Amino acid sequence: MSLSPQQIADVRCLAFDVFGTVVDWRSSVIHEGEALGKARGLEVDWAAFADAWRAGYAPSMHRVRQGRLSWTSLDQLHRMTLDRLIQEFGITGLTEADKAHFNRVWHRLQPWEDAVTGMERLRERFILTTLSNGNMALLVNMAKHAGLPWDCILSAELARHYKRDPEVYRMAARLLDLSPQQIMLVAAHQDDLQAAHREGFHTAFVMRPLEHGPDAEPDLSIDPAFDYVASDFHDLADQLLGRRGNP
Amino acid sequence: MSLSPQQIADVRCLAFDVFGTVVDWRSSVIHEGEALGKARGLEVDWAAFADAWRAGYAPSMHRVRQGRLSWTSLDQLHRMTLDRLIQEFGITGLTEADKAHFNRVWHRLQPWEDAVTGMERLRERFILTTLSNGNMALLVNMAKHAGLPWDCILSAELARHYKRDPEVYRMAARLLDLSPQQIMLVAAHQDDLQAAHREGFHTAFVMRPLEHGPDAEPDLSIDPAFDYVASDFHDLADQLLGRRGNP
Repeated sequence: MSLSPQQIADVRCLAFDVFGTVVDWRSSVIHEGEALGKARGLEVDWAAFADAWRAGYAPSMHRVRQGRLSWTSLDQLHRMTLDRLIQEFGITGLTEADKAHFNRVWHRLQPWEDAVTGMERLRERFILTTLSNGNMALLVNMAKHAGLPWDCILSAELARHYKRDPEVYRMAARLLDLSPQQIMLVAAHQDDLQAAHREGFHTAFVMRPLEHGPDAEPDLSIDPAFDYVASDFHDLADQLLGRRGNP
Repeated sequence: MSLSPQQIADVRCLAFDVFGTVVDWRSSVIHEGEALGKARGLEVDWAAFADAWRAGYAPSMHRVRQGRLSWTSLDQLHRMTLDRLIQEFGITGLTEADKAHFNRVWHRLQPWEDAVTGMERLRERFILTTLSNGNMALLVNMAKHAGLPWDCILSAELARHYKRDPEVYRMAARLLDLSPQQIMLVAAHQDDLQAAHREGFHTAFVMRPLEHGPDAEPDLSIDPAFDYVASDFHDLADQLLGRRGNP
């Protein structure tokens, strides 16, 4: 159910989830893992490694959310998981510099093919900001590396809460001096959109069926409460900008 | 005294003061004031008004700094000063919408002529961030309006301290995950640069002799501790990028 012309006219900002929505973390981590493996003579299933690294994300944030771990940036959480996985995968011979560099692969993720050009279209009409669990430095470096045309970088770090805690969405509205209804969250993850919706944000679900790889079976049952459902950022731009007629 | 090749190679980020350094607040406020005066039939010396508005800036921030006023955004401080000046200048007949719109002239300031193209050159080599007392919404809207090519928007608001409090500079280093030596403050105000220098930042003084208008007498005695002194952003780019040879 798309917005009325009045509602869409009131939207000033698109706030984007980043990992999975804007960038393809899995292919990027596999690609750099393979290069590292080649350079250091390692035999590793880098797809399994990438999936395990990403799988460590939610539990590690949950420890912060529950207060079992004081505020810890995503860079640091990634490193804690990396150190564990190096052991679990039986990887040896990496220097500290190797590990530090590989940990920052999350600063060098590649965008989905439609992302940059789709954002450039959307940016003509809206303020584009990140609203990501990635820390500020990670998001700034990623944008620089991938050429992502943000107007603003906002991170969970600024709220010292991780999504889907409501404080993160409220921080964005407060810092941009906008009402929740003037912001639309763009994300490939339904729980993120549902949390934003509870705070009064509008919502756009962008399907990224390949986020977890070609063999994963994405959940295609879509919450009917979302304002927009789009196949990529160009489809979203078509719908929001009405270039092919309003849906 | 410019930096050694090794020191300059270590600099990752240029952090810019904004009001006066990137944008010409005075001409912009005068220009919008004159338009408002014409529309509402007001007889006002808008240059004097602009100067008085800006003169209210330091004392109002100082009240926050001393704790006499709890954290108050620059938008709100500007509005408090505006309301006072409307009385002092004997201005009548403005609606609330007029005042709210005029207060946001600070979101619509015009850049100095060299600013955007100079920044585009510097951006090829450095992360460009704001480091301004303007609140986040003001800086995002200004960038959108003036086409300022920032990689990142950082505001004193994120530290809940105003420059020249050291917390503001430390916040920038922390959020960008850089050491102070990897950041250079670019500013037209010597006290700002001196405060950044005390935190270990490198410093570039950009002269903006017209900031306070053609009749003001700028202080041209320059602190010899600054790493660079430039006449505008292109001169700074020439010096930092070595296009015309290192100075």
